[in-house]
Amino acid sequence: MPNIKQIAEAAGVSVTTVSRVLNGHPYVSSAKREAVEEAIRRLNYSRNMNAVHLIKGMTQTIGVILPNINHYYFARIMEGVAKQALKNNYQLMLCQTGYRPNEERKVLEMLRNKQMDGLIICSRALSLRDIEVFADYGPIALCERVSGRNLSSVYIDHYASFQTAIRYLWEKGKRRIAFTIYRRNSPSSRSRLKAYTDTLAALGGQAREDWVLDGYLDWEDGAALVDRLLAMNERPDALLITGDQVAAGFILSARLRGIEVPGDFAVIGFDNQPISSLLGITTIDNRLSEIGERAFSIVHAQISGGEGQPVSEELSFQFIERSSV
Amino acid sequence: MPNIKQIAEAAGVSVTTVSRVLNGHPYVSSAKREAVEEAIRRLNYSRNMNAVHLIKGMTQTIGVILPNINHYYFARIMEGVAKQALKNNYQLMLCQTGYRPNEERKVLEMLRNKQMDGLIICSRALSLRDIEVFADYGPIALCERVSGRNLSSVYIDHYASFQTAIRYLWEKGKRRIAFTIYRRNSPSSRSRLKAYTDTLAALGGQAREDWVLDGYLDWEDGAALVDRLLAMNERPDALLITGDQVAAGFILSARLRGIEVPGDFAVIGFDNQPISSLLGITTIDNRLSEIGERAFSIVHAQISGGEGQPVSEELSFQFIERSSV
Repeated sequence: MPNIKQIAEAAGVSVTTVSRVLNGHPYVSSAKREAVEEAIRRLNYSRNMNAVHLIKGMTQTIGVILPNINHYYFARIMEGVAKQALKNNYQLMLCQTGYRPNEERKVLEMLRNKQMDGLIICSRALSLRDIEVFADYGPIALCERVSGRNLSSVYIDHYASFQTAIRYLWEKGKRRIAFTIYRRNSPSSRSRLKAYTDTLAALGGQAREDWVLDGYLDWEDGAALVDRLLAMNERPDALLITGDQVAAGFILSARLRGIEVPGDFAVIGFDNQPISSLLGITTIDNRLSEIGERAFSIVHAQISGGEGQPVSEELSFQFIERSSV
Repeated sequence: MPNIKQIAEAAGVSVTTVSRVLNGHPYVSSAKREAVEEAIRRLNYSRNMNAVHLIKGMTQTIGVILPNINHYYFARIMEGVAKQALKNNYQLMLCQTGYRPNEERKVLEMLRNKQMDGLIICSRALSLRDIEVFADYGPIALCERVSGRNLSSVYIDHYASFQTAIRYLWEKGKRRIAFTIYRRNSPSSRSRLKAYTDTLAALGGQAREDWVLDGYLDWEDGAALVDRLLAMNERPDALLITGDQVAAGFILSARLRGIEVPGDFAVIGFDNQPISSLLGITTIDNRLSEIGERAFSIVHAQISGGEGQPVSEELSFQFIERSSV
């Protein structure tokens, strides 16, 4: 196996140039790059980065656990993570685990086995206790509020955002407020349910268990929501829909059946997705891309700085008033 | 450093059980898993998988190059890739390269450096010639038509799909047909431009250079398209819009300004995204998720089977007639 000096000699370039080509640096002329490529092929050279990682004890890789990549919420967080990864010359190991605890566990084992230097968890099925035991092997950041544990966290306050939305509906004269979520027992759903109960109690209104509607994640779920509402004996007059694509699916399907928003139902969406602007949906911007960027930066800083205390960082949500209430 | 047998003894379980926990297998009882976790912590055990990869010469990792994860087109391909990766117990290295040639090159170097066993390229800025030299280091599949090279390819026929759409518009009486694309010089755009020119020539119609509209990728680009069309002296009566979210942005923004689809402009979208069903957009299903699944499977089969000839696989697109023409 030739070394880098022999490649340089064979290609008629400097060792620095060979190193630049091998590391994918810019500012190498095409002619020199081709000469190096040609020498590499001729001498049958390759580095095994697994050996480099073994010696360094580092992989320049951060793992990301998410349930499903093809959903705006996660794709947007991922965009922020990937933006920072590119800037910091890190690779991302993407793990689409579909809320399967054993798949999440496999990724945590990869952290222990030094296949990644740190881990970002966008959403999870495992308990915090199950996750925390792996924090000894590398920094872990979650995109939700976590406190009192050896885990970092970047989040917006779902309780406060729900409170803001419910108060807004109340001020607009809405008294029959329902809300949709995806998973009833997720950490954010529990915060939202509590905000729903507390806020309506404080306002003298009524939080109704049968108006907590779960299983709503995507466009087509919004269409199905129309049927569910029409089948109710007592209908709400306002909906908090946690996800603008569910809200858009609802509004567009409702329109086809002669039901108007905000006339028949007031709607507040979540995430400030591009479709919410096109349809004039009042929404809450959850700053998903920034959550991804910050989660990366926190994990990256902990890797670079060696041991460090976990960081908890709250980003402020933004209420965006449009015309669906 | 303890070995796996000592962990098993300390935990009071079999070596098989320890191995199962370390590899994240299901079917380990909580009690045994916790005993193993506890022994691992107490004895301060960790494997370094970089050593395992060094010895095996394999990483169980496949890389994916895509320009931007937060776009339906790529997120949907990625969903298919990730589904197969999960099924085959492979990890994915995600590289959001933003069409930067040097970032793409870095990922190709990772293939050479044995940080991944194979590579899927969803879209690219580098030339096929630049990519092909890396095929010696592991199987590479592209999500576009490639022939006569040492690269695999999974694709739908963009030429034929455009031909189908143009003929459909022609049969519906449309004679002034324009189309939108994102990058003018991408391989798929070149096929589409050729289909536009050839098909209209065969029908006795007119392909107009000023009706090839580029730079359209996302929702808000669809809104901008309304302005561009209104500013034209001679307006088309039909639009092929390559991407349903651009088409949806166009239709919804047009509606706000009193312009009707299909009344003022007939529209055919692409990708059969969920929004196209909600808005009744006639579209072409490009089978993106299946392209991702097949690309993974082809690369995976080549890794598992050792050396193998590159595979070229065409999936058939589907024309979906709705109400926007």
